[in-house]
Amino acid sequence: MALVVHKYGGTSMGSVERIQNVAQRVAKWVKAGHQVVVVPSAMSGETNRLLGLAKDINKDAADMSPREMDMIASTGEQVSVGLLAIALQAIGTDAVSYAGWQVPVKTNNAYMKARIESIDDKRIRADLDAGRVVIVTGFQGVDAQGNITTLGRGGSDTSAVAIAAAIKADECLIYTDVDGVYTTDPRVVENARRLEKVTFEEMLEMASLGSKILQIRSVEFAGKYRVKTRVLSSLTDPMMDINTEANSGTLITFEDEETQSMEQAVISGIAFNRDEAKITLMQVPDTPGVAFKILGPVAKANIDVDMIIQNQSTNGTTDFSFTVHRNEYKKAMEVLETEIKGAVGAKEVIGDDKVCKVSAVGIGMRSHVGVASLMFETLSKAGVNIQMISTSEIKISVVIEDKYMELAVRELHKAFDLDQAAQIESV
Amino acid sequence: MALVVHKYGGTSMGSVERIQNVAQRVAKWVKAGHQVVVVPSAMSGETNRLLGLAKDINKDAADMSPREMDMIASTGEQVSVGLLAIALQAIGTDAVSYAGWQVPVKTNNAYMKARIESIDDKRIRADLDAGRVVIVTGFQGVDAQGNITTLGRGGSDTSAVAIAAAIKADECLIYTDVDGVYTTDPRVVENARRLEKVTFEEMLEMASLGSKILQIRSVEFAGKYRVKTRVLSSLTDPMMDINTEANSGTLITFEDEETQSMEQAVISGIAFNRDEAKITLMQVPDTPGVAFKILGPVAKANIDVDMIIQNQSTNGTTDFSFTVHRNEYKKAMEVLETEIKGAVGAKEVIGDDKVCKVSAVGIGMRSHVGVASLMFETLSKAGVNIQMISTSEIKISVVIEDKYMELAVRELHKAFDLDQAAQIESV
Repeated sequence: MALVVHKYGGTSMGSVERIQNVAQRVAKWVKAGHQVVVVPSAMSGETNRLLGLAKDINKDAADMSPREMDMIASTGEQVSVGLLAIALQAIGTDAVSYAGWQVPVKTNNAYMKARIESIDDKRIRADLDAGRVVIVTGFQGVDAQGNITTLGRGGSDTSAVAIAAAIKADECLIYTDVDGVYTTDPRVVENARRLEKVTFEEMLEMASLGSKILQIRSVEFAGKYRVKTRVLSSLTDPMMDINTEANSGTLITFEDEETQSMEQAVISGIAFNRDEAKITLMQVPDTPGVAFKILGPVAKANIDVDMIIQNQSTNGTTDFSFTVHRNEYKKAMEVLETEIKGAVGAKEVIGDDKVCKVSAVGIGMRSHVGVASLMFETLSKAGVNIQMISTSEIKISVVIEDKYMELAVRELHKAFDLDQAAQIESV
Repeated sequence: MALVVHKYGGTSMGSVERIQNVAQRVAKWVKAGHQVVVVPSAMSGETNRLLGLAKDINKDAADMSPREMDMIASTGEQVSVGLLAIALQAIGTDAVSYAGWQVPVKTNNAYMKARIESIDDKRIRADLDAGRVVIVTGFQGVDAQGNITTLGRGGSDTSAVAIAAAIKADECLIYTDVDGVYTTDPRVVENARRLEKVTFEEMLEMASLGSKILQIRSVEFAGKYRVKTRVLSSLTDPMMDINTEANSGTLITFEDEETQSMEQAVISGIAFNRDEAKITLMQVPDTPGVAFKILGPVAKANIDVDMIIQNQSTNGTTDFSFTVHRNEYKKAMEVLETEIKGAVGAKEVIGDDKVCKVSAVGIGMRSHVGVASLMFETLSKAGVNIQMISTSEIKISVVIEDKYMELAVRELHKAFDLDQAAQIESV
């Protein structure tokens, strides 16, 4: 008997029939002797419908109270938990639903992007011990003053992992509309391969690079509290063999467990992000504090910065580059021209919003200096010019012209043998 | 400056534009110097949509958990309060919304028909004192264990009146899609007249007789806590003169205030109910306990009984009659035939589902014995046969063949001079 948390996304909860499928699947786990806590999202489209009503009332979304937005948006999940409880009861499985505030899932007061501070497991445990399935709203909690808060888009993943941590679940199963984590996007590379395992550090790099399977904070939580988390498909037959299901998808594991495996691949996947734009301040006097003088005003304008690159200075000046989301390119260029260029004494501001980022990610690359050279060699052979390079311990990212993105991803996927099963050293 | 509660029904909250109208109206009251608490219903159709989802999941509604139904249904009002807060903020009026559990509005644990036990006014008062409009969900509360409960259909009226009582509001204004309480249904009698005032006892009789303007429990609350309650139209221009608006509709007052008025009419209105069915057990042995033996099994079958009539016995037997909703006629007849007839030794069970009930209601009739005779005379002249009669202190009800209903209502309305303004003694 295991204690597991199941999380189901909006698509899995998208209709009466799908909710009944989820109930069948959960009931199967209960019949197999497991204790199950379920964290469902709002029915697909519901959160958008609710926030759309608010936006119709106040076209100027900027001055809309985030507290009231959370009051409204949180109802989508509350409906889901009630419906799923009814679906389970209808097939003879005892179940009870809770809104975040009833558990309670306590968060800070940052409406629309709250962070979970604590989860009381008393009520959940009592119901589990009484033989019930416990269904808890994802995406939301309650602050110290009793106000409803939400965790931001995709927050139900974080709720599920956090609840799994609080009740010390054996595993957190994230049921979604893909059947696992792939070596790269199968829409770009046909023979992209599903990974049976991935470390949470790799997942973190891949999530932040746009793999979009899991909300990044849920991965951080999984790492921090060492929650064994599995991403698997909710589109399979709910009555499929439970052991097959329990071993499907991709398991997110921990590095210390992984390094014991001889079959560790050097690179786990090729991630990419289409929506980049790069900006460079040319010939900035290389004096202390200049980086802050540049990025301070950018942050103040609420522009998120992704990569930051500054190279060795020449003749007392340096070129300072960073990338932003393409949607914020114009705004960023304006801030640089009006507020920063003169203040830091840069010669010129140049930018390009026709770029993308491609990254090779893998916990195994730490001890393999050859990864970078194979990556650069592959791109060179494919005729792709590298505009910027940035590296972390387990990833190498390059900025290239966006029209070469698919080509670069395909060639790298091939070069790192990612279409083959895991291997012993390849580079 | 007054402290008022505004209640808006589902139709008034039925679209983005209507919610903006409600905001305009509330803002007008605030600008005029009043403190306002608003209790809005769910957007029209929303509660049905939500409960419809639950019914689609479990066709057999009988074994559906009422706790989960409340979890689902209560979200409709939560969305409304958030949207109204945003609408008020958009026009520069400070506002904050609360779900029932946040106030808290404490109820007993009777899901789907909970009763309010207490309302904490601290949070509401603090916000009012800070110059905010406070918006509280109608229809719902929270039990001692922190479960969400709902008050049953129309419960938002009760929420509004209860909150008005808790904060000692000067008046509770129920904005609805009719412009007040009428002497009878204007669709039946063209010159039905709006009453400027009605006592809460009269309103009670009229509500239970099907006037349907206010949930009956809200009227009980208004009476018990002496909440001055006004029923008025939400379909007027939201920017209409506030003094005109504040004196429009129908004010529900208290008898002791009313009796000081010389202009008290004997009869305030003619109420009616189309959906009646009558059942009679013929020649029941007149022994102690027989009424319970009959109504016990009926109640056990969850059939609501309206009128109950038992006349003087003749030769040791009596005829026992009662009326039920027409929808429950067949079920009631079955229970009587199979479980009751033999057990009480009745000779025969006869029934008729082609009847209706017409009532004359008025606090003034207590001291006017002539009311009954004028009523019976009027019906006789109109050729309407009276099948059953039942009276309370302030009403006389008759059961008649349903095809005569409109005729009876029109003739009685005329006979009691209800199309005239209030008068000094007429009978």
